[in-house]
Amino acid sequence: MKIGKVIGNVVATRKDERLVGYKLLIIREMVPDGTGSLQSVEGAVGTSVVVDLVGAGVGEMVIFCSGSTARASAGDGRAPIDGAIVGIIDTVDVY
Amino acid sequence: MKIGKVIGNVVATRKDERLVGYKLLIIREMVPDGTGSLQSVEGAVGTSVVVDLVGAGVGEMVIFCSGSTARASAGDGRAPIDGAIVGIIDTVDVY
Amino acid sequence: MKIGKVIGNVVATRKDERLVGYKLLIIREMVPDGTGSLQSVEGAVGTSVVVDLVGAGVGEMVIFCSGSTARASAGDGRAPIDGAIVGIIDTVDVY
Amino acid sequence: MKIGKVIGNVVATRKDERLVGYKLLIIREMVPDGTGSLQSVEGAVGTSVVVDLVGAGVGEMVIFCSGSTARASAGDGRAPIDGAIVGIIDTVDVY
Amino acid sequence: MKIGKVIGNVVATRKDERLVGYKLLIIREMVPDGTGSLQSVEGAVGTSVVVDLVGAGVGEMVIFCSGSTARASAGDGRAPIDGAIVGIIDTVDVY
Repeated sequence: MKIGKVIGNVVATRKDERLVGYKLLIIREMVPDGTGSLQSVEGAVGTSVVVDLVGAGVGEMVIFCSGSTARASAGDGRAPIDGAIVGIIDTVDVY
Repeated sequence: MKIGKVIGNVVATRKDERLVGYKLLIIREMVPDGTGSLQSVEGAVGTSVVVDLVGAGVGEMVIFCSGSTARASAGDGRAPIDGAIVGIIDTVDVY
Repeated sequence: MKIGKVIGNVVATRKDERLVGYKLLIIREMVPDGTGSLQSVEGAVGTSVVVDLVGAGVGEMVIFCSGSTARASAGDGRAPIDGAIVGIIDTVDVY
Repeated sequence: MKIGKVIGNVVATRKDERLVGYKLLIIREMVPDGTGSLQSVEGAVGTSVVVDLVGAGVGEMVIFCSGSTARASAGDGRAPIDGAIVGIIDTVDVY
Repeated sequence: MKIGKVIGNVVATRKDERLVGYKLLIIREMVPDGTGSLQSVEGAVGTSVVVDLVGAGVGEMVIFCSGSTARASAGDGRAPIDGAIVGIIDTVDVY
């Protein structure tokens, strides 16, 4: 999984019907530095669109997963989903 | 998923028969900057060939998925597909 | 999927028996520039070994897929294959 | 698989219920140089969140796997997991 | 698949029991240049840990696969494996 921050959302009226009912959120990956502070990862590597499985909102720090894991985690596992928020972060500790 | 722009298409007469009937589109990944404007991702990282599942055309902004999710989303899930357009974007908002 | 050019081949006499009968080709990813001309992607990102499912030869421009999609596309889906050529390209158009 | 060092942990009270009971650890990939010494891989490429399947603790050198392999390895294979520690390293030898 | 050179090994006494009996080898990806000579890919991109399915040893040039393909190729497909050597290379030809 990766740590990310929800930075926005996408609206798509015309879409695969199996996506109906999912919030499509834009997420930016965050990486902890040596002190545990989270640094934003810019550009294509750090940015993707995910569905929300846990009630996350814009600005929140979350855990998200990718690939077939995201698909298998959402609904019946057959929606065209390859990214999903699966947790809302309380604290990050780096030692 | 990723945000992308359809920039072209590929014609391949000789191909795996399970690909017959699919439009093969060239997609370029787009990443929102801090204002929500979409910036093109050049080169190998940002460019791939996908099938279209929602009636997208050249120049449109779309959502696409990758890997086994794309394969599972298209037809009976057995075609040699690892990228698929699954939504046409109305708006992108970044906060 | 990705666009690639077949640039060579690998011979491996000792191999997993499920690979017997497959041609092992070296492929270099190609990315269209703004005019539709295909530019070679050098190095690790752009180079891999794939099996050929459509009768492609050295020098040809092809479409190839990766990961579980390549495996599922070849034979009974159980061979140790994570890259496969699935189409031979006639034309690439970028708008 | 990859070699990694456990550098921290994440607490997420609100999460997909299938993650309950798993320790969420932050891992940094390590790469051996020519002498076998392990060098840390900084940034997004080298950092992820994984579950622990073998009792690893902060500071330990481990082997971790990714993607559907991590998911299939944990419990009944249906939890939203795409990274998992599967071994604790005794020695690394590079020749 | 990728071309790689076996450069070392990892010993892990405490590990997922489904890994018992597998040799854990460190592999470095190799990429052919224009003449067919193989160049080493340093760093995180080029380095991983794989199991050996074909009797490869340190110093040998091999073909390895990744992800769910490696898992599906090893034993009953349920071990926590995401990289596997599936062939030992005799020759590489680049045209």
